[in-house]
Amino acid sequence: MPRYKLTIEYDGTPFAGWQIQANGPSIQGALAGAIEGLSGELVVPRGAGRTDAGVHARGQVAHFDLARDFPAETVRDALNFHLRPAPIVILNCEITNDAFDARFSAKARHYTYRIINRRAPLALDRNRAWQVGVPLDASAMHAAAQALIGRHDFTTFRSAQCQAKSALRTLDRLDVEREGETIAIHASARSFLHHQVRSMVGSLKLVGEGKWQPEALRRALESAKRAACGPVSPACGLYFVKVDY
Amino acid sequence: MPRYKLTIEYDGTPFAGWQIQANGPSIQGALAGAIEGLSGELVVPRGAGRTDAGVHARGQVAHFDLARDFPAETVRDALNFHLRPAPIVILNCEITNDAFDARFSAKARHYTYRIINRRAPLALDRNRAWQVGVPLDASAMHAAAQALIGRHDFTTFRSAQCQAKSALRTLDRLDVEREGETIAIHASARSFLHHQVRSMVGSLKLVGEGKWQPEALRRALESAKRAACGPVSPACGLYFVKVDY
Repeated sequence: MPRYKLTIEYDGTPFAGWQIQANGPSIQGALAGAIEGLSGELVVPRGAGRTDAGVHARGQVAHFDLARDFPAETVRDALNFHLRPAPIVILNCEITNDAFDARFSAKARHYTYRIINRRAPLALDRNRAWQVGVPLDASAMHAAAQALIGRHDFTTFRSAQCQAKSALRTLDRLDVEREGETIAIHASARSFLHHQVRSMVGSLKLVGEGKWQPEALRRALESAKRAACGPVSPACGLYFVKVDY
Repeated sequence: MPRYKLTIEYDGTPFAGWQIQANGPSIQGALAGAIEGLSGELVVPRGAGRTDAGVHARGQVAHFDLARDFPAETVRDALNFHLRPAPIVILNCEITNDAFDARFSAKARHYTYRIINRRAPLALDRNRAWQVGVPLDASAMHAAAQALIGRHDFTTFRSAQCQAKSALRTLDRLDVEREGETIAIHASARSFLHHQVRSMVGSLKLVGEGKWQPEALRRALESAKRAACGPVSPACGLYFVKVDY
């Protein structure tokens, strides 16, 4: 019974999120449909991260098992065929072993959040970035962000609906870089809490516009209170970029 | 009677092109509607370049006159309001003088063509780039492209429908750059013929995959025959980036 590992790109805009759910189309559901189209088997792939509605992926990873043995290239091409016209694409497929689990084997997850910092609304990048009209100081955001690196209780930066037992997480990277009008925020950790990246970005935006002094971010973290968080940033700016195993 | 100069970004996907036409919505028509919404005046803006259906802009320029005097910022914000939800955005508006003509005053036009060179179809960049599955040698494309620089008869690289009286044009820049799986082709000239950039890109792609030897591009140019051109590349990869005055 071969296990397949998929690397997946998707535009999250038309989906209610990664996970199969009652209130709209999901990426997981579209993949299950494509797997059935290929194999006739009803299989639900397990993903490395359960991205929310509107969140994109350039390198989501998922695995699933099939009774029948197909070459990896056949699976990749057949899934891409069956996925059309949904904006979900299999970038890579390989055959792996039973010990591999897309979720539990992950050693690091990498997200990027895109802000376009300009007054004008977005035409080409609509649903692909967060448009922020007020000028942001990306250097100040980067400096403040470093207070979140390391092992902390991230209660401030997780959704009230987050189901993780503990809010303790180790944040390995939170870099803020500007290139022209685009600000990219790169976040890496073994795992993230629900809405953690978008909560951190929403608070960093307050630092960037000068509403929060840099030390306010550290104080918000240390308070370990959800109420101390800035407004959560919109889903459309978030990209699930890569998973390390 | 003030003259306004607009700098415009748009996603060309849902439009039949820049120019007002019978067979579908146009960018020029949407702008005329927004100008009427602001001023009550029926005015057709004149653009620096008549982009085809599906071609995008990051810096199209247009001008128009109004009887009434509005501040430039009011025009920018009101047009953006009236343009919604069309994917057309006014990046900048300034008041200029009667001597300025978006089309005839242009000293240089800059286009960029985006290829994504990978086997997998596009999810996030769908309608935003040309996906080419066969590996392309961007260095060979760049080297070959240099044969087109300068003043030439570009009959080979213009549409049979092109209405320009002469096919003589001076190409100032045709650079091919790879960054990861993305190949960007930058083209600059005072003016271009109809389908010129897409025709050059279509032929460069044949060089990139080794179907054409580099000198084939020069021979195609020198033949001055439309039949010598490679297949024209799709509109969705083309961006009208900037106009110099």
